[in-house]
Amino acid sequence: MVTYSHIKDAQERIRGAANITPVMTSRTLNQKVKGEVFIKCENLQRVGAFKFRGAYNAVSQLKDREKSRGVIAHSSGNHAQALALAAKIAGVKAVIVMPKWSPKVKVNATRDTYGAEVVLCENTIEARHATAQALIDKHGYTLIHPYDNDNIIAGAGTAALELLQEIKDIDTIIAPVGGGGLLSGTAIATKGFDSNIRVFAGEPKNVNDAYRSKEAGKILTNDSIVSIADGLLTNLCDRTFAIINEKVDRIITVSEQEILEAMRFYWERMKLVVEPSGAVSLAALLSGKVEPARGRTGIIISGGNIDLGSFFQLLEQKITPSS
Amino acid sequence: MVTYSHIKDAQERIRGAANITPVMTSRTLNQKVKGEVFIKCENLQRVGAFKFRGAYNAVSQLKDREKSRGVIAHSSGNHAQALALAAKIAGVKAVIVMPKWSPKVKVNATRDTYGAEVVLCENTIEARHATAQALIDKHGYTLIHPYDNDNIIAGAGTAALELLQEIKDIDTIIAPVGGGGLLSGTAIATKGFDSNIRVFAGEPKNVNDAYRSKEAGKILTNDSIVSIADGLLTNLCDRTFAIINEKVDRIITVSEQEILEAMRFYWERMKLVVEPSGAVSLAALLSGKVEPARGRTGIIISGGNIDLGSFFQLLEQKITPSS
Repeated sequence: MVTYSHIKDAQERIRGAANITPVMTSRTLNQKVKGEVFIKCENLQRVGAFKFRGAYNAVSQLKDREKSRGVIAHSSGNHAQALALAAKIAGVKAVIVMPKWSPKVKVNATRDTYGAEVVLCENTIEARHATAQALIDKHGYTLIHPYDNDNIIAGAGTAALELLQEIKDIDTIIAPVGGGGLLSGTAIATKGFDSNIRVFAGEPKNVNDAYRSKEAGKILTNDSIVSIADGLLTNLCDRTFAIINEKVDRIITVSEQEILEAMRFYWERMKLVVEPSGAVSLAALLSGKVEPARGRTGIIISGGNIDLGSFFQLLEQKITPSS
Repeated sequence: MVTYSHIKDAQERIRGAANITPVMTSRTLNQKVKGEVFIKCENLQRVGAFKFRGAYNAVSQLKDREKSRGVIAHSSGNHAQALALAAKIAGVKAVIVMPKWSPKVKVNATRDTYGAEVVLCENTIEARHATAQALIDKHGYTLIHPYDNDNIIAGAGTAALELLQEIKDIDTIIAPVGGGGLLSGTAIATKGFDSNIRVFAGEPKNVNDAYRSKEAGKILTNDSIVSIADGLLTNLCDRTFAIINEKVDRIITVSEQEILEAMRFYWERMKLVVEPSGAVSLAALLSGKVEPARGRTGIIISGGNIDLGSFFQLLEQKITPSS
């Protein structure tokens, strides 16, 4: 199992490559919850999400033989871009398997901005696995899983560690949970730093597998996978479940409406672009289910990658007559 | 005329009340312009705009008799909310005259969040002036003009001063220009700090009165007032023109499309909500007209207040079936 010292090692390893992201505060938010809230802005991390921490930590620990062959991931999300950039920095080839329906802007960013080879496949999870496996068999690529991987988890934990090192006397930390990589790393970092600090998770009610799994003491999966928080649709794996079961104090589920309200608070009041998944920790705090909310709460924004096309189309229409 | 020492005094005066806003950077942006760019984030200032600096500086210098009577402004923009909040903090009554067509959300925020008395009037500039003047005559309120006011200009200049104190060896500073309050304060602060630093302004081509005024050596006004940068539609006044004429090295005009592209860069790449007016300085830099762009450039984001209603309506529609 990943330990606190692995996370401290990861922090040294990613120094200089990853951003030390800012911690933001809001007077309005503090008044709202009658406490002090410290927001760790991983939307301002490289590639716009905490995922870069784990990806860089994983790639930089590959053996030379693995590096010379390259890495592979099947993902259409933030992990893909994070792995592509981490590999690019390390001079390692990256191959990303993406479903055909992936937005062109994501395919292009992964290929052009981050220099990865993109392989498109059919739109099923099975096809993604099979396509990746065939490429691994043929070329000897190393699969970097988005969360079922100790180095990924240790890297993810560095966000909470940075927050705890910068802000003294945090009472509670809240992170979102999907596959459980960020939450696992956060829990290990936090309990290692000070075992009295409470570790809470925010999870969409619509995909509450982590909540139900923790209640049941075994991994349960989601029947539906419909949530605006598209980064949190995945199920836990044995590795993350074991950590979460042991170290996370509580999982708080939130409605789609609560996620949207938290997101709106970030955008309108704090001027931060946060993706729906990234707003789930704040949604948990604002839901009133964190008792007591008083004291000092650390909130992790996981990312800020959201398609703004429709919004900018509206603005384009505004300028067309006059420009 | 406002001097450098007025700006240093203003900095002391607003300390603790105004935010010391963060300075952000972007690797992508630095690569794009082949230089180092430092973004002063006044969108993260209180009320979401630099305007709070000047408003607080002005209100806190009122005489007791003026304070007991109250302050007034006619504005539907950031100045109104900034003045309302500054007055609230100082325990001074604030009256804001707004045109009837002002968005309800703005009227409510000014009244409910910031505690000002809102007086609605007809939708013309004449009506705003007349309504304000009648209230001044009746109640003895002190008018706080959004830019034709030395204390407002001195307060606005503290943003550039903070930036210069934090980031060493800046070569060029770029601020947007509308009525010229922010640009005047920026120019005085910058030339006072180091007269070798270049002060540039960004201005929308559609409302290029400042550019033409500086060329002509006298104040010219705008024929059209159509630009997406709705905070920059106003003309210079004698006070700001004199400063800009003497201290600003160059005014760079940008198209509506260039403003939108700069805005999009902030939102998509830096995850910052910036209003169109606030993106004009970056638009000037990205236009390629700043020669040489190399070196260290300071960019002032003036504000981040933009109506996100339509964007969140789209998101609401997404969640309706499943929540």
